[in-house]
Amino acid sequence: MSIKILFIGDIIGKPGRQALSRELHRLVDRHAVDLIIANGENAAGGFGLTTETAKELFDTGVHCLTSGNHIWDKREQVPLVLADRRILRPANYGTEVPGTGSVVVTTPGGVKVGVLNLEGRVYMKNLECPFRVADREIELLRKETPLIFVDFHAEATSEKSALGWYLDGRVSAVVGTHTHVQTADERILPQGTAYLTDAGMTGSFDSVIGIGKEEAIRKFLTQLPVKFEIPKKDIRLNGVLVGVDPENGKALSIERITMGC
Amino acid sequence: MSIKILFIGDIIGKPGRQALSRELHRLVDRHAVDLIIANGENAAGGFGLTTETAKELFDTGVHCLTSGNHIWDKREQVPLVLADRRILRPANYGTEVPGTGSVVVTTPGGVKVGVLNLEGRVYMKNLECPFRVADREIELLRKETPLIFVDFHAEATSEKSALGWYLDGRVSAVVGTHTHVQTADERILPQGTAYLTDAGMTGSFDSVIGIGKEEAIRKFLTQLPVKFEIPKKDIRLNGVLVGVDPENGKALSIERITMGC
Amino acid sequence: MSIKILFIGDIIGKPGRQALSRELHRLVDRHAVDLIIANGENAAGGFGLTTETAKELFDTGVHCLTSGNHIWDKREQVPLVLADRRILRPANYGTEVPGTGSVVVTTPGGVKVGVLNLEGRVYMKNLECPFRVADREIELLRKETPLIFVDFHAEATSEKSALGWYLDGRVSAVVGTHTHVQTADERILPQGTAYLTDAGMTGSFDSVIGIGKEEAIRKFLTQLPVKFEIPKKDIRLNGVLVGVDPENGKALSIERITMGC
Amino acid sequence: MSIKILFIGDIIGKPGRQALSRELHRLVDRHAVDLIIANGENAAGGFGLTTETAKELFDTGVHCLTSGNHIWDKREQVPLVLADRRILRPANYGTEVPGTGSVVVTTPGGVKVGVLNLEGRVYMKNLECPFRVADREIELLRKETPLIFVDFHAEATSEKSALGWYLDGRVSAVVGTHTHVQTADERILPQGTAYLTDAGMTGSFDSVIGIGKEEAIRKFLTQLPVKFEIPKKDIRLNGVLVGVDPENGKALSIERITMGC
Ligand SMILES: [Fe+2]
Ligand SMILES: [Fe+2]
Ligand SMILES: [Fe+2]
Ligand SMILES: [Fe+2]
Ligand SMILES: [Fe+2]
Ligand SMILES: [Fe+2]
Ligand SMILES: [Fe+2]
Ligand SMILES: [Fe+2]
Repeated sequence: MSIKILFIGDIIGKPGRQALSRELHRLVDRHAVDLIIANGENAAGGFGLTTETAKELFDTGVHCLTSGNHIWDKREQVPLVLADRRILRPANYGTEVPGTGSVVVTTPGGVKVGVLNLEGRVYMKNLECPFRVADREIELLRKETPLIFVDFHAEATSEKSALGWYLDGRVSAVVGTHTHVQTADERILPQGTAYLTDAGMTGSFDSVIGIGKEEAIRKFLTQLPVKFEIPKKDIRLNGVLVGVDPENGKALSIERITMGC
Repeated sequence: MSIKILFIGDIIGKPGRQALSRELHRLVDRHAVDLIIANGENAAGGFGLTTETAKELFDTGVHCLTSGNHIWDKREQVPLVLADRRILRPANYGTEVPGTGSVVVTTPGGVKVGVLNLEGRVYMKNLECPFRVADREIELLRKETPLIFVDFHAEATSEKSALGWYLDGRVSAVVGTHTHVQTADERILPQGTAYLTDAGMTGSFDSVIGIGKEEAIRKFLTQLPVKFEIPKKDIRLNGVLVGVDPENGKALSIERITMGC
Repeated sequence: MSIKILFIGDIIGKPGRQALSRELHRLVDRHAVDLIIANGENAAGGFGLTTETAKELFDTGVHCLTSGNHIWDKREQVPLVLADRRILRPANYGTEVPGTGSVVVTTPGGVKVGVLNLEGRVYMKNLECPFRVADREIELLRKETPLIFVDFHAEATSEKSALGWYLDGRVSAVVGTHTHVQTADERILPQGTAYLTDAGMTGSFDSVIGIGKEEAIRKFLTQLPVKFEIPKKDIRLNGVLVGVDPENGKALSIERITMGC
Repeated sequence: MSIKILFIGDIIGKPGRQALSRELHRLVDRHAVDLIIANGENAAGGFGLTTETAKELFDTGVHCLTSGNHIWDKREQVPLVLADRRILRPANYGTEVPGTGSVVVTTPGGVKVGVLNLEGRVYMKNLECPFRVADREIELLRKETPLIFVDFHAEATSEKSALGWYLDGRVSAVVGTHTHVQTADERILPQGTAYLTDAGMTGSFDSVIGIGKEEAIRKFLTQLPVKFEIPKKDIRLNGVLVGVDPENGKALSIERITMGC
């Protein structure tokens, strides 16, 4: 028997939320999913998360929301949003930052799964070392369960791959987010950790990583700040399905998901 | 009928070159490949290219080598290496920089294919605008042939995706390199340009993007400069196969390639 | 006889504008200033420029406003602000960007002075090469006058110093802005160009480079976005006074200015 | 009575070392200097430090050497160089990194002075938070002495200024290094900490921040890696002299030093 964890890549605005409300139950049924984790950092209009959009996502069946650098975008919403223990911000922000970066959730079948959210530093912010913070957080989580799912929200493939190897055998899965493009390198590392550099995104693919193509091109051409629209066409859901042995937390399978909505 | 272009992602050191000498002819036969382009920026010991390693790659059947930020690593070799018209450096370096960024090669069957190499700027160097340089280069290439293959060597998915849309309908394919991780987002854009954010790498996958895992992890933990070894185990070839209509240069098919060697 | 050009470092919000309205006439009298140029990129609330704040600055006696990366912050004001030929944005933005990067102004005594604004690329945006754009712009300006003042809005001391040497003998002065800290390296380079790495800022010095100390510290500690206040205490004016030979545009003197207001 | 601490900005190669051997005793005599600290990260050929160049600097009278990002450049020398307790590397590297970031030295007159070296993170490496590490290190140092001198080796003026304010009243001085350009903003902050954003450099000023002008310009124009020469003309010494009350560690005076050699 294996516990099936479905992880959904960055949900981009309303089109992304609609993809979930339309398709998630079908995915869950087809794959007998036990637990659903989703990255919600772009769920509210492409930038940040609100209590309302979070509720919408939980209503579709999501059990836990991870995030990343954009979680702070709806500033006035941050305290309330992060007061919900099911919503994580990366664990390697400083101690005085609101919210937490890990949580233990329980599947409907009663299996405990630790979820850990980390953010990369290469080409990103000057956070605490994600490798060291992972050591600390995993030690705590493993006191409760060997099933641990890590969302590593990072830009550089080198940092993501290195963390995968660093945690191999200590967690069930290391899955990357943030680039909004799904990578094709899913594998189970030698010590039993499922790994994927990036889960991709859930939203409009008639876009540049979820936002308007014309605005994105104009930004590169002019180097001026641009007001982004969230396109609505060609909506797809990206994610990854990880099967885990509930006895020891080792990954048994990893499968990329990409579907039109 | 369609022209089949095989593009091979960054070849990393000796293991990467060996992958080609062992497996390339099999790939070419199986897919009836007409033209082989490969990114050679890491072919010499993981850093740069030499006349010797370039010759080794041409001997395996490669017709044209593209490159990127690492092409300058073997400094004393640069003038000789880039004197070979079949070896490109990104076109958006300044005019006084050795070498060129585009070339028209002819398949054994006599079809002309333009190859254009560009480098991204996001999180990279302050080069000329790859969008503007693409405009200029493509205008010239299209005087000779509508079949144009673009290797966009770049870090950020947003910049790569934006260039794909920007060139849609003007070139046969925009394929990214540099992250060394193959992405799963191959598609043909509406105006007929095949697109893939990153072709991945050809070399050891018992590694962090081609280099030693232990050194890579140590680098992230200590932030000290590290001397990298090129691992030899678990060699794989990553690439992409694009079918192009020789009449109008439109892409007919795009298929990711990943194979153990 | 020498033409005296007073350049004023980045004016930060209302305190900065007040410094000018209170002290500028005194400075002008004391030093017999012929022309006043000021960097206005932070004049409106610390971020950007509006038609109103620009008018306020011109009313204090400023003849020409330069800017930098923050000029785009008040987005809806940009077209109108940059329609005023006395207001420059860096010249090395693309051609489709509103505004221009150089202008020839005439002193009350009838001497023509070219003003050129450039922005650095190191740790900043992917603009056109400031060195090449300087070549192009200076060639045009020198058709009208050999007196040319360059505001190089840049972060890295290496890039600023390199441009100073690159333009030595072709312009009257290269003065840096953007770091908001005045440097102590004023000198006249061998071919006659006055050089200063940074002119500093005009605003509250009870601050971290013009913005609230507490917020700035909190930002470094938490890595969270912060809403900045513009402090009002300890207002100082920073600038530089350059004496230029009107016959040939060579610098005759350079003197840093820093005064409490 | 006051303790006079002379701090010397980044010493660049042989010209920088010669400046010290020729002029340091004169400076020490003139200002009755009690303690000499110098940043040695560029002392060996412009990149790094060797046991030999360190000895040369100690022989000129320097009591303690600080450093920064370039201290790792002479890799094989690092263990031996950092085994000398008088040579610091920034304290905010990880615990497994060789060397230490703070030391208590004793003036010839028997007064204990703590020296703390930190490195910035903005536009630099992903180190531990310099603010937090400063808290920790200063708590330890203050058990031995209230006289503490901080060399904050950092790029961004905002980060340097913020650390100055953050440590105001807890240390005798916060002096920046790394940009190689002396700033003109020396002051004593309200709680008694002397502050200067950057002390500048000691070496050839016929250069771009200590290295060859032509190579530096070529690098900006071509974006290619460049082999740098260390120029020899126009040698100057940059530094800062801080007077400290030995009773309570409060700064009594701060004076910039710049002299031809
Ligand atoms: Fe995202
Ligand atoms: Fe993100
Ligand atoms: Fe590469
Ligand atoms: Fe690369
Ligand atoms: Fe500014
Ligand atoms: Fe600026
Ligand atoms: Fe230095
Ligand atoms: Fe440095």
